[in-house]
Amino acid sequence: MTTMDQVIKCRAAVAWEAGKPLCIEEVDVSPPKAHEIRIKIVASGVCHTDWAYLFGAGKGMQLRPFPLVLGHEGAGIVESVGPGVTKFSPGDKVIPLFLPQCGECECCLSPKTNLCRKDWKNTQQGVLADGTSRISCRGKQVYQFLGIGSFSEYTVILETSLARIRNDSPLDKVCLLGCGVSTGYGAALNAAKVEPGSTCAVFGLGAVGLAAVMGCKDSGAARIIAVDINKDKFEKAKEFGATDFVNPKDHTRPIQEVLVEMTNGGVDFSLECVGDVTVMRAALESCRSAWGTCVIVGWTELEQLTVAPYDLLMGRTLKGTYFGGWKSVEGVSRLVNDYMNGRLKLDEFVSNTLPLNKLNVAFDLMKKGESIKTVIAVTE
Amino acid sequence: MTTMDQVIKCRAAVAWEAGKPLCIEEVDVSPPKAHEIRIKIVASGVCHTDWAYLFGAGKGMQLRPFPLVLGHEGAGIVESVGPGVTKFSPGDKVIPLFLPQCGECECCLSPKTNLCRKDWKNTQQGVLADGTSRISCRGKQVYQFLGIGSFSEYTVILETSLARIRNDSPLDKVCLLGCGVSTGYGAALNAAKVEPGSTCAVFGLGAVGLAAVMGCKDSGAARIIAVDINKDKFEKAKEFGATDFVNPKDHTRPIQEVLVEMTNGGVDFSLECVGDVTVMRAALESCRSAWGTCVIVGWTELEQLTVAPYDLLMGRTLKGTYFGGWKSVEGVSRLVNDYMNGRLKLDEFVSNTLPLNKLNVAFDLMKKGESIKTVIAVTE
Repeated sequence: MTTMDQVIKCRAAVAWEAGKPLCIEEVDVSPPKAHEIRIKIVASGVCHTDWAYLFGAGKGMQLRPFPLVLGHEGAGIVESVGPGVTKFSPGDKVIPLFLPQCGECECCLSPKTNLCRKDWKNTQQGVLADGTSRISCRGKQVYQFLGIGSFSEYTVILETSLARIRNDSPLDKVCLLGCGVSTGYGAALNAAKVEPGSTCAVFGLGAVGLAAVMGCKDSGAARIIAVDINKDKFEKAKEFGATDFVNPKDHTRPIQEVLVEMTNGGVDFSLECVGDVTVMRAALESCRSAWGTCVIVGWTELEQLTVAPYDLLMGRTLKGTYFGGWKSVEGVSRLVNDYMNGRLKLDEFVSNTLPLNKLNVAFDLMKKGESIKTVIAVTE
Repeated sequence: MTTMDQVIKCRAAVAWEAGKPLCIEEVDVSPPKAHEIRIKIVASGVCHTDWAYLFGAGKGMQLRPFPLVLGHEGAGIVESVGPGVTKFSPGDKVIPLFLPQCGECECCLSPKTNLCRKDWKNTQQGVLADGTSRISCRGKQVYQFLGIGSFSEYTVILETSLARIRNDSPLDKVCLLGCGVSTGYGAALNAAKVEPGSTCAVFGLGAVGLAAVMGCKDSGAARIIAVDINKDKFEKAKEFGATDFVNPKDHTRPIQEVLVEMTNGGVDFSLECVGDVTVMRAALESCRSAWGTCVIVGWTELEQLTVAPYDLLMGRTLKGTYFGGWKSVEGVSRLVNDYMNGRLKLDEFVSNTLPLNKLNVAFDLMKKGESIKTVIAVTE
């Protein structure tokens, strides 16, 4: 029995308001409109950003409209396509993208950036191109986080925000390429452009930080210093290529002083994968003068970063990156291939797998530092 | 009669203490020690940094030891050389450098930086490699600003901080390559790496800013927006290649909003040539997201710069430069050649020429915005 053109009733984890746990609800998912694709979400990673928009709204993060289906690190299968869609067919395996790649705008046509802004204002507010979402619950519109909303068994995605991937891809692994792993890995490759033989420091050993460690390693870094206040992360970081470990809790001095001393002047590249302005400053000050580059990878929207101009005048570069600098559609397809060909680790990030109704447990594990990455089995 | 190996008695403008005008004094200039060169200063530009260390000490600038001979934008003729000096001979025309190029250190051997730190700590404190200066007045050591002190008829320079230039160079023009012009021009070429067809904004139209405008123009920028609160500077900026002029006093909105609007999203490259943290932030925020690059050229030591991480996460790069990214000895020699071959403007920067005893007048003209660059005729 086809579901095409029908409203699909399915389960989703709904965030009714900021600061409250998610509720599993039956939702209605409308058929795709023109240039939209409805997909069945098979798996979705749980990202710190999901947590932050729920519990950090108005603090580090801007308040987004509620009710909201979170989740932006999913993978699934095309159920049906709306009018005008030519690149996707039912049955295709896909990864939804919170960063589009329209292929036509000034940014897409430039090799200097991956930041396509197609429908950006809408998707950032949780709606699609026409200003509405396709998910509702008890007659009330439910916003789709970043234009996705992957903590729902079905959702509808804009065709410019979807990557088709090879059909032998294990969705419960490649979903991680929808955000965290691509972001951290690409930050090292595309933004920092880590050089062979260099010394790197990675601040924060969540999935993004571990992926950054992997990117430094793949770029040929000779020394990769992993920094975290949770020493339990160090064993995992070593698996991804870290050579040194620094726990700020073990030191009374500012951690940048420790790093500058242990590297005889500072690291060549530092990557901030926390999203904390104090850590961002430490990351910049950990860089070697003359050519040190600090890349901000961690996300924060409302905080302000204070630095000393002198540190920049002495040859340091401060930059940021979004989605690891990957042009999203092309980049994710390539990274899936890399994974399938054994050139990229993904399995090693998955510490937990939970069903959709255990999402709040996944948040708890994350906040306690007891998971690297939890993958939610959204549908069977 | 040779002066070699003799103490030379001559005139210098001495800064006895912070915040007080300079005094013309008779000073004693010792013969050069090993790897030092004594030079007769023929001409010296007056730079805002000279003023700032005298009148801004403890505010934007760190306090340097007094008494002090300021001046770091000089040009002169070798009078005698100390033991071990092989690259210079009496009669050579030279430009003293506040940034050395030893040719041997990690930085000099790297193509990624110009920041040689040879004897850096000492010269920053106004002394040479052995921890003392060669200038004294009434028996008291007088520090040489940045290891130079070009507001003295004679001074002694470390051999790694001196560029030999062609002997047909007019010293009263090429002296400007000792600081301001090289700094601004190189900031556009070497640090920003301004691209053909790009849109640039230059904040601050002193000599450094005008040289940055010239660098943008020589790099093929299609549009160069000159920003200053002194509208009298705009005519001069046009001469150097500026295409648009914005006076923040003409607007009630933050100037970055004006620039973003007039460029439909922001400039590709912005250069801050003021040394003010508020202007630095405006320069960053004037950049286009996705690939905008902001280069801090203006100098400040004690102020803190606050930026929004979001602006960096959206693809902007913030960096600084020192001496325009030129490897000092090579760069200055090259720029002198460029000037002599008509490929670089210098004469157009000189608005005033004054004798040594009118230095305080030069400072007044600068602070009133009534000069672009005053050149001091130190000796005849």
